[in-house]
Amino acid sequence: MQQKENTRKWNVEASIAAKNTVNPIRQIVDKMNYKPNPNKPTIPLSIGDPCVYGNLKISDYVDQLLIENIKSGKFNGYPPSTGYEFARAAVAEYVQTETSKLNSKDIIIASGASGAIELAFSAILNPGDNILIPKPGFSLYECTSKSKGFGIKYYNLQSQNNFQVDLEHLKSLIDDKTKAILVNNPSNPCGIVYTKQHLQDILAVAEEYCIPIIADEIYADITFGDNVYYPMASLTETVPVLSIGGIAKRFVVPGWRLGWVAIHDRQNILTNAKIPDAIISLSQLILGSNSLIQSVLPQILDKNNKIVQDFCNDLAKTLETHSKLTIDMLSKAHGLKPVPSSGTMYQMIEIDVNAFEDIADDNEFVGKLLSEQSVFLLQGSVFQIPNFFRVVFCAPVDKLTEAYERIIEFCQIHKKK
Amino acid sequence: MQQKENTRKWNVEASIAAKNTVNPIRQIVDKMNYKPNPNKPTIPLSIGDPCVYGNLKISDYVDQLLIENIKSGKFNGYPPSTGYEFARAAVAEYVQTETSKLNSKDIIIASGASGAIELAFSAILNPGDNILIPKPGFSLYECTSKSKGFGIKYYNLQSQNNFQVDLEHLKSLIDDKTKAILVNNPSNPCGIVYTKQHLQDILAVAEEYCIPIIADEIYADITFGDNVYYPMASLTETVPVLSIGGIAKRFVVPGWRLGWVAIHDRQNILTNAKIPDAIISLSQLILGSNSLIQSVLPQILDKNNKIVQDFCNDLAKTLETHSKLTIDMLSKAHGLKPVPSSGTMYQMIEIDVNAFEDIADDNEFVGKLLSEQSVFLLQGSVFQIPNFFRVVFCAPVDKLTEAYERIIEFCQIHKKK
Repeated sequence: MQQKENTRKWNVEASIAAKNTVNPIRQIVDKMNYKPNPNKPTIPLSIGDPCVYGNLKISDYVDQLLIENIKSGKFNGYPPSTGYEFARAAVAEYVQTETSKLNSKDIIIASGASGAIELAFSAILNPGDNILIPKPGFSLYECTSKSKGFGIKYYNLQSQNNFQVDLEHLKSLIDDKTKAILVNNPSNPCGIVYTKQHLQDILAVAEEYCIPIIADEIYADITFGDNVYYPMASLTETVPVLSIGGIAKRFVVPGWRLGWVAIHDRQNILTNAKIPDAIISLSQLILGSNSLIQSVLPQILDKNNKIVQDFCNDLAKTLETHSKLTIDMLSKAHGLKPVPSSGTMYQMIEIDVNAFEDIADDNEFVGKLLSEQSVFLLQGSVFQIPNFFRVVFCAPVDKLTEAYERIIEFCQIHKKK
Repeated sequence: MQQKENTRKWNVEASIAAKNTVNPIRQIVDKMNYKPNPNKPTIPLSIGDPCVYGNLKISDYVDQLLIENIKSGKFNGYPPSTGYEFARAAVAEYVQTETSKLNSKDIIIASGASGAIELAFSAILNPGDNILIPKPGFSLYECTSKSKGFGIKYYNLQSQNNFQVDLEHLKSLIDDKTKAILVNNPSNPCGIVYTKQHLQDILAVAEEYCIPIIADEIYADITFGDNVYYPMASLTETVPVLSIGGIAKRFVVPGWRLGWVAIHDRQNILTNAKIPDAIISLSQLILGSNSLIQSVLPQILDKNNKIVQDFCNDLAKTLETHSKLTIDMLSKAHGLKPVPSSGTMYQMIEIDVNAFEDIADDNEFVGKLLSEQSVFLLQGSVFQIPNFFRVVFCAPVDKLTEAYERIIEFCQIHKKK
């Protein structure tokens, strides 16, 4: 240092990465000046956490497995940064498809699906590159990308067409800096399970333009009725797919923070580009997920384990009942139009603002609903789709019914005269 | 896209960040071509994981708390990205000092101390800035920095002077791009607990040059004999200190992945620069640490909890016995000179290569020892200090004794004729 030191000021400033790490939900929600009606108990249907009400909960069987493994004392040390070998093998067995077989080396365990998304994005993109992400979509894709200087381009999901991807729009966004297409299926916030044909159409674009897919498949096992979930990797022989998964939603344990990246790469396109090594290298920075939780994966991901299968089927059935209730009731509300969910725990509802006397947009709908009826929803704007709102339908049926009655009343009160 | 699409190749390449994420330990160790002697059982003293042998283990009391909380079903949902409020409060109470009082908002829970290091570095540094890190030192500081494009400058620890910081060298490295000084106390790999005076001398440099301290204090509670651990934040009224801590070593559970950043900022230097907000923003990317583990923090970090205090004191006493054994035995080995540890679970040993017939350097010492005596050590080179090696003295006394006898024999065999 040449300068006289005692004249120097503290050279402290928040980093650019931190300044660019903005959760769009908080940014919009925190600006709202509405408070719940003190005369009505609040009913939150806004947070994507199935544990909030206690009606949906983990199987005792899984808890018992975990307790046994705690008592064994065998799972307190450092797992490898990519996860225990046996845990990776269990995930591989669970997520592989008939046509895309995997083994343990194709799996990297991460700190939740969020950690897996960070690993997958960071392995493939450099600052200045871009990734195509859905609109409406889960806000973490944007948050993670902006934090790291990765460009984002939103491709449209068509609300009038079951939130299918606008393929022409998707194509039009691709440039030489496009390194991945993110596909979220089943999707948050839309609650839609794509058909085989539609997934094949998306894969055809990826193949034509030679862009790998990052498939956020965290809601893989939660589908309703005849809707079938197809892993993207099962529908392509060529397109490399990094599939993101985890146990958060399927087992109702988002706090446990266990996710994974599964590398489907049948033509060795990623391997030749050393992408698996890149993901492994990045996993060394924070050393993955909790060792105890990893220890139960072989049992809970075993597709022949009837207890677990029954639990997961029951969960999906319960959510399907809730979904039907949601669509049935909210279809009757003045000025609202649900786009019926086919899976997940989310329902998107379109607001016809012209049908209301004094509701300018989704922010005002959600804000006034809170202050009059004490029901929390997330406005579509936080997912980049104005004049919609998202319902999380995990709450017990009586709470949901009460909330929807209040919404119906609210719509009636604010109906255009 | 202007170009004809079917002529386009897959535009896939591992990111620069991933390529720059290199664990120096793996880089050196993987290049070694030595294998253990098949006629002797291997004794690994290389991995900094106290769980390896099963002799050191978590208190049953902590396991029981965890099991109770699992059974309660209350801790499966998403905690806030910064950690549960009650968990942050427990850490604040635990890490605050007489002079630097903290509350929950000063704590961010992270995925292990590694996750906490990533948060602290990323909040303060931009690519092109630099951080001063100790040499020898823990390799993650370099790995994390290079991954993110942060410059590193090594300041010397003096092996002839109990690995104290060479303060003049430290000062000489500071420039306008220096955003933090990382101090690791008690230290890995050195095993040294710095005196109050020495820590004050380091703080005086930080104060003179107006550089915040990042204090990696993960080995805080593991000290031997009269050596006292002083939190850096307890010794300064002005210098802001981001203290990194966690439960991995103190409770022998590194696989549990629970660490924290504690923000000591008595003059609001960091707050004015919005560093706490920066850390909070960054914590949103992967949503912190496992909810179940967080749930036991109020009990296990309670300084009035005698069961836990006794456990921690016993652990330190056991490690102190192991440390004495290590120093006593290896002091007798030809050509070796320990720099006696005053805490942690590590012992650094200097190799006088001139005392040996056919040992050119630490790599060769460690390699030949493995192939002849089946004892695993880490060479100093992986910590940037050639012609030393590090012993992790967590193994049971009989294993340590056997290993040290083999090392003594090895030194005798290779003694210069």
